[in-house]
Amino acid sequence: MAIPLASEYPSKKLGDRALETTLRDRRQKLSRLVHCPVVLWSGRRLSRNFPANQYPFRASSHFLYFAGVSLENAAVRLESGRLELFVDDPDPAEELWVGEMPKRHEMARLIGADAAFPLSELGSRCEGAATIAVQDGTTPSQQAQLLGRSLSSPTEPRGIDAELANAIVTLRSQHDTAALSDIRTAVSASIEAHKAGMKATPNSNTEAQVRAAMEGVILSHNMTVAYNSIITTHGEVLHNERYDRALKPGDLLLADVGAEMPTGWASDITRTWPVSGRFSATQRDIYDVVLAAHDRAIAEVRPGVEYRNIHLLAARVIAEGLVNLGILIGNPDTLVETDAHALFFPHGVGHLLGLDVHDMEDLGDRAGYEKNRARSERFGLRFLRLHRPLLENMVVTIEPGFYQVPGILNNPQNREKYRQVVNWERLEMFADVRGIRIEDDVLVTEDGSEVLTANLPTQAEAIEHLVRG
Amino acid sequence: MAIPLASEYPSKKLGDRALETTLRDRRQKLSRLVHCPVVLWSGRRLSRNFPANQYPFRASSHFLYFAGVSLENAAVRLESGRLELFVDDPDPAEELWVGEMPKRHEMARLIGADAAFPLSELGSRCEGAATIAVQDGTTPSQQAQLLGRSLSSPTEPRGIDAELANAIVTLRSQHDTAALSDIRTAVSASIEAHKAGMKATPNSNTEAQVRAAMEGVILSHNMTVAYNSIITTHGEVLHNERYDRALKPGDLLLADVGAEMPTGWASDITRTWPVSGRFSATQRDIYDVVLAAHDRAIAEVRPGVEYRNIHLLAARVIAEGLVNLGILIGNPDTLVETDAHALFFPHGVGHLLGLDVHDMEDLGDRAGYEKNRARSERFGLRFLRLHRPLLENMVVTIEPGFYQVPGILNNPQNREKYRQVVNWERLEMFADVRGIRIEDDVLVTEDGSEVLTANLPTQAEAIEHLVRG
Repeated sequence: MAIPLASEYPSKKLGDRALETTLRDRRQKLSRLVHCPVVLWSGRRLSRNFPANQYPFRASSHFLYFAGVSLENAAVRLESGRLELFVDDPDPAEELWVGEMPKRHEMARLIGADAAFPLSELGSRCEGAATIAVQDGTTPSQQAQLLGRSLSSPTEPRGIDAELANAIVTLRSQHDTAALSDIRTAVSASIEAHKAGMKATPNSNTEAQVRAAMEGVILSHNMTVAYNSIITTHGEVLHNERYDRALKPGDLLLADVGAEMPTGWASDITRTWPVSGRFSATQRDIYDVVLAAHDRAIAEVRPGVEYRNIHLLAARVIAEGLVNLGILIGNPDTLVETDAHALFFPHGVGHLLGLDVHDMEDLGDRAGYEKNRARSERFGLRFLRLHRPLLENMVVTIEPGFYQVPGILNNPQNREKYRQVVNWERLEMFADVRGIRIEDDVLVTEDGSEVLTANLPTQAEAIEHLVRG
Repeated sequence: MAIPLASEYPSKKLGDRALETTLRDRRQKLSRLVHCPVVLWSGRRLSRNFPANQYPFRASSHFLYFAGVSLENAAVRLESGRLELFVDDPDPAEELWVGEMPKRHEMARLIGADAAFPLSELGSRCEGAATIAVQDGTTPSQQAQLLGRSLSSPTEPRGIDAELANAIVTLRSQHDTAALSDIRTAVSASIEAHKAGMKATPNSNTEAQVRAAMEGVILSHNMTVAYNSIITTHGEVLHNERYDRALKPGDLLLADVGAEMPTGWASDITRTWPVSGRFSATQRDIYDVVLAAHDRAIAEVRPGVEYRNIHLLAARVIAEGLVNLGILIGNPDTLVETDAHALFFPHGVGHLLGLDVHDMEDLGDRAGYEKNRARSERFGLRFLRLHRPLLENMVVTIEPGFYQVPGILNNPQNREKYRQVVNWERLEMFADVRGIRIEDDVLVTEDGSEVLTANLPTQAEAIEHLVRG
C-alpha cells in the first residue's frame, strides 16, 4: 500500500508546518483563479501481471500539488481556499499485511486539511466541481460517476474543467519555495547518479551495468526514477529503453537519468561520455559543438525571453559548429531557416520541469504553449515542447543534441532536399558519433537564471576525468 | 517502446531454434486440452503521470507462455498446434524516437509462427475463440469487442474460457526445460542480489541503501524485479514497501527480493540477517526454529505429496520450536490444530512460482487449489495459496516465518482464545525479533526435489559470515 506513515515525512514539514503553509498558499492562489469547487483524485495502483503484483503507486501530479502527500485512492476538494480530504481509514484486516497506516485524521492534520471524510462522502460534495481526469485508466469512470457528468479529455477540457486547467498551468508553471526545494533535492541525487555512472563505466561490460550504478544511487536515496532511464551507446535512438548492449572502447554512452522525490518532484539530466574515458577527435569536435549550443542557450535564460528563440539560438550554434566542421555547408542562419540543423538536432531544446518530467504534459500543449500558439509544421520546430515567454521560477531543461538517426539521414526526401547543404562524405568521418546530448535543469530567476545542475560538469575534460576516476 | 529487436534475444534461441521448439510443444499440448481456437493478448503500456511517461511494459503471462517474447499490443491465435501472430509493423515515424524495431515477419520467424497478420486482421480471426482477460485495465474492452461477446472474469471464467483456464493451469503448473532454464537464470541473479545486500549492510544506514545494492545487481543483469522488493527492519509487516528506516545494530533485516527474466520467468527469495552481523541469542533461537521448519518442509517436497501437509508440517515444527523456547505451552499437534502457531506464522508456507511470482494468481485459486477444494476458514490455513498434490516439474516456494504482528498479538479475541497457550511474559524477552522468513524456490523432481536456490546459504553462521564479509 502506498499510504505512508506520517513519520515518513521530513520532520521539518511536521514540525514547522511548512507543508501546511505551502498547501494553503497554493489553494488560496487557486481560489483567485477558479470560482467553482475543484475535486482532484489521486488515482489507484495498476496491476502488473496479476492483481496483487502492482506497479509502484504514483499519485496524479495535480493531486500531489494540492495534497502534498502521495495517498492512494484519495481525493481533495478545494473551494475558496478550503481543503477537504477524502480517504478511507485503513482496513484493520489489511494491517496484518501492510503494517500500521495513518488514519484519515492524521493525514488531514499533516496537510492542514479543514475537514476530512471517508470516500463515501465524496459523491455528495462533488456538485458543480471542476476536475482533471487521472491517467490511470480506471479512476476517470469513478470521477465521471461522482461528478454526475461526462469527463473532459485532459488535453481538450471544456467549461469549468478548462478554467481549472488554465489555473493549474498558471500555478504550476512558476514554482514556489517548497517545490524548488524538492526539485533541488532530486537534482542532487541525479548528479550523484551521473557521477556514479561515469565512475562505473570502466568496470562495466554492458549498458545495464552502468544503469545499475546510476539507478542504485537513486534507490539508495529512497527515490525513484522520474522516467525510464536512457543509458545507451545508441544515443541516436532518442527514447531508447534497451540496456543490453555491450560497451566498446570507442563508444559514446548517453545517459538521460533523473530522480524523483517521494513527493513527486522531478529532475532530468543528460550527459554523454566516452566509454574509454577519452573522446576521439571527432567525438570531441561534435561534443564541443553541442556544449557551445548548451552554454549559449543557458546564457539566454531569463524572464521575458521567448523559449523558442532559445531553441533557435541552440539550433543556430549547432548549425554554425557543423559548418565549421565541414559537415554543413552554407550560412548558419539560412541553414536554420531551412531546418537543415534538424537533420542532426531534430528535437526541441527542452521543456518545463516540475512534478512531471515534461511538466503538465497530461494537459497536452496547454502548459507548454502560450494561448493561441500551436505546434509548427516545420521539421525544425514541430517537436518543440515549450513556446512561451519565460517567467520567474519556471524550471526548464536545456538539452541540445547531435544525432545520426538513420531514419532521418537516409530518408530520400531529406537526401534530396539537403543535397547541397550536407557534405555527406565529410559526415562519414564522424561515424563514431551516434548521439550526444547535454541536458541541464535551469531555474528562471528574477533577473537571469540558475543552473540547478551546475555541480555536474559539462566540459569534455571534466567528463573524461570523472570517467577515468 | 517495448518491442525488442530480435538481436536482444539470446542467440542460442535464434540459433538452435530452441524457442520455436519450446513454443510448438506448448501449443501442441494445449491443442490436446482445448478444442476451440485460443486468442491471447499481450496488453498495453500503462501511463504513470502523463501519457508519454509509462511504466515499463510487462506482457500478460499467458501471452508470454505461448509467444515467448514480450511484444506490446500484440496477440497470438492458437488452434490445433498452429500459431498466428498479430502485431502491427512499427510505424516508420516512430523509429526516430525508438530506433529500428523488428518487423512483424521477423518476430514471426523468431517464434516460429505459422502466419503473421496486422492487428486489423484479428477481428476476423476471433470467432469462437477462448481467452483470458489481460490485467491492464484497457485491453479487456478490446478483447470483448473483437470476440464479439462479454469477457469472463479471470477468476470466474465461463464456458470455453474456463476450459482454457483449466488447460493453462495444467500446462503452466509443470515447467518445461526452457521455463526451468529461465527460472534458474533468474534465481542465479537473485542469489547474487541477496549476497550483495548482506555485504552492503554494514556500510548502509538505511533500508533503501541495502535495496539499492540488491536491485542494482538485478538491473546489472538487465533483469527487473519480479515483485516490489521487501527490504525492511519491520519484517512483521508482511507486504512492507517502505525503505526509509534507519538500520540499527540490534535490528534484523528481512529481504524478500526476486529477479525476473526479460522473458517473464520469476524467482522469489527471502533471507533474514542481523544488521550487526551477529544474531542476538533470542534472534538466533527463533531463526533456528524457522530454519528447522524450512528444512523439514523442503525435505517433504516430492511428487504426490499434498502441499497442505507440508504447510502443516512447517506449522508443527514452528509450534514445537516455540514450545521448546517456552513461548507456546502445550502439545505441538494440538497447538497446530487450534491454529496457535498462526499467531506467529499467519501465512501459508508458499506458492507456485513461474511466469508470475504467485503463478497464475490472476486466475484466483484455480491454479493453487485442486478442483473442488476451497480456502479454509481456519486462521492457520486461510492464507495458504497452494492446496494440491505436488507434481513433477512444479516449482514451489518454501517460506516459513515467525512474526510479531501487533494486530494479531494485541487482538483481544486472540489474547482471550490463546490465553493459556502463550507465555506472554516469556514472549516479551524476544522483543528483538520482529519478523524472520527464510524462503527458497524448490523444483519437484521425478523422485524428490531440487532446491534451486541452494547456492544461497540458510544457516545462521553462514548468513552472519556473509554479512560480516
